[in-house]
Amino acid sequence: MRTVEWDYDRNLVKMIDQRQLPRVFEIVDFTDYNDVAMSIREMYIRGAPAIGAAAAFGMALAAQQSRATERGALLRDLEAAAGVLQATRPTAVNLFWAIQRMLRIATDEEIEHVADIRRAILAEAQRLADEDVEINKRMAKNGAELVKEGDTILHHCNTGALATVDWGTALGVIRMANEQGKNIQVLLDETRPQLQGSRLSAWECEQYHIPYTLIADNAAGHYMRTGQIDICFVGSDRTAANGDVANKIGTYKLGVVARENGIPFFPVVPTSTVDLALPTGDDIPIEERDGAEVTELTFFGRPVAPVGARVGNPAFDVTPHKYVTGIVTEHSVVYPPFSINLRRAVEAEQAKVMGKK
Amino acid sequence: MRTVEWDYDRNLVKMIDQRQLPRVFEIVDFTDYNDVAMSIREMYIRGAPAIGAAAAFGMALAAQQSRATERGALLRDLEAAAGVLQATRPTAVNLFWAIQRMLRIATDEEIEHVADIRRAILAEAQRLADEDVEINKRMAKNGAELVKEGDTILHHCNTGALATVDWGTALGVIRMANEQGKNIQVLLDETRPQLQGSRLSAWECEQYHIPYTLIADNAAGHYMRTGQIDICFVGSDRTAANGDVANKIGTYKLGVVARENGIPFFPVVPTSTVDLALPTGDDIPIEERDGAEVTELTFFGRPVAPVGARVGNPAFDVTPHKYVTGIVTEHSVVYPPFSINLRRAVEAEQAKVMGKK
Repeated sequence: MRTVEWDYDRNLVKMIDQRQLPRVFEIVDFTDYNDVAMSIREMYIRGAPAIGAAAAFGMALAAQQSRATERGALLRDLEAAAGVLQATRPTAVNLFWAIQRMLRIATDEEIEHVADIRRAILAEAQRLADEDVEINKRMAKNGAELVKEGDTILHHCNTGALATVDWGTALGVIRMANEQGKNIQVLLDETRPQLQGSRLSAWECEQYHIPYTLIADNAAGHYMRTGQIDICFVGSDRTAANGDVANKIGTYKLGVVARENGIPFFPVVPTSTVDLALPTGDDIPIEERDGAEVTELTFFGRPVAPVGARVGNPAFDVTPHKYVTGIVTEHSVVYPPFSINLRRAVEAEQAKVMGKK
Repeated sequence: MRTVEWDYDRNLVKMIDQRQLPRVFEIVDFTDYNDVAMSIREMYIRGAPAIGAAAAFGMALAAQQSRATERGALLRDLEAAAGVLQATRPTAVNLFWAIQRMLRIATDEEIEHVADIRRAILAEAQRLADEDVEINKRMAKNGAELVKEGDTILHHCNTGALATVDWGTALGVIRMANEQGKNIQVLLDETRPQLQGSRLSAWECEQYHIPYTLIADNAAGHYMRTGQIDICFVGSDRTAANGDVANKIGTYKLGVVARENGIPFFPVVPTSTVDLALPTGDDIPIEERDGAEVTELTFFGRPVAPVGARVGNPAFDVTPHKYVTGIVTEHSVVYPPFSINLRRAVEAEQAKVMGKK
């Protein structure tokens, strides 16, 4: 089962409800793109590549839901759906990229009939999902070359199969290194507030038999300073043209402390997550989420935080490129100067996709 | 009510059970020093100065419990109690310092009768507790001079009245600045794994009407990088002669990221917490606590972490002195070179205490 997929028998979108992991594995059906939007906002599904695929399938649902009989009306319905899906989360660029890719199909003059447009959008969503898996495996191979026998790897948030359609980005690199028999150990940041490391990455490591140790995010610095970490791999929700990386909150602190200790720090980033239109990370919008994510916690069965506590809850932060050793993409491992080399890798991949068409 | 105190009517030790805050305020009685030891280990009470006072009163209980009729027998009982109390937690030096101070009274040849020794130990424990409050207020005044009108202050863990006998160390500085009408704002790290920021510091800020915002520890870097933090105050469980500071896990990351952003970083440290016998922080033992502190959590009512997840849980880390702007003590704010200036401040305070006797 992929994180998100189209059910061709029943014409609907299926998703793993990640909020219930690791204790409950439940698959949820969606027949309305509005519910897909809700599932992205409420984090049934998360992770930049997975969000992109969910939005693409959401657009395929919207095409199916539309009663339009001619292109203009269908396009209006699709644009309305795009608006709803785009408004769910502001930081991950794959969301916008995937939706734009679906809209492009709908405006492709070579496809004449409305029924054909509907089929073409679903086919494009399926292609996007399949490409994600293939891209992740290429990134994993590129990244795994950076891992040495016996390395202890630090990982933040969840970037595994659950954050993508399948296989994963940073955790995909770790999974590949493990399958290559490199005798790695992984330290998993639990990743407050949403605890994706504890809820999702630990669960995934158990599925793949990767030896892991779960830690509070605060402990990562101690392990780095005392020489217990060899390399860091993290994901990215949006990477600017200069190599500044927006990723799950806490990544910035890790990047700074890694550099301070001479530990290589590699974001693992499909080129679809690179936003060449943004010169620097300062232009990336940072989502502020509900403070309940910080306070709706029990510790040994007891609630924490005073009732009505005021909370700040930015979901992402930006790690400036000076802390980034290199960026693992499906094209290659990109090194500084990022403003030149990242554009080169992205454009090479775009040319390859164009060539296929 | 102080965090820990002697009940002279009933001859026992009373403590706030901090595990139950912020939702339940319960005071627990202790009549056996073994239970006081348990209360320190199980974190009914925590914070270096509070642990010191609890251990001192624990020794007073042990003296009261002992059936000895002559000094030698009493001393043997007290040394046994000292062993039990010292074995509770390894990092905070105040524990050892307070216990040694009580043992010194018991060996004071000027006190002849066993009953007098018992009384003298209790009086010394009371003196230690009273001194803690006085020292905290002096530190608070010294530290508050560093706070400017309108500052936003970052704070880690709990260092308030609950971490001391009363008033607090780092949070005591913040409280003083607030009482001085400086229009401050405080960002409180929730401080995983034990969540002392969420459970205790937020509750204390409400008591003192200090405007606070609770954040996940991961968010602190984002607020620092985007210019939203003016100064950091943290506590310390043990400070080495060179100014290296052992404090609650996560402090090291904060120190590094504060320096990276040019934000002043001040541990607030009573001289009793300075261990001049240790040349550097590398010699400070770091307590490893039960992994359940990381996994025994529910998030929106759902358990996190796979059953049986392997966990690393160091309770403290060491922030090397190069990240420390200055150390606020009851004597003065000490600046580098710490190896000279910290010793000077500690010895000046020790001379003052000797002078009083």
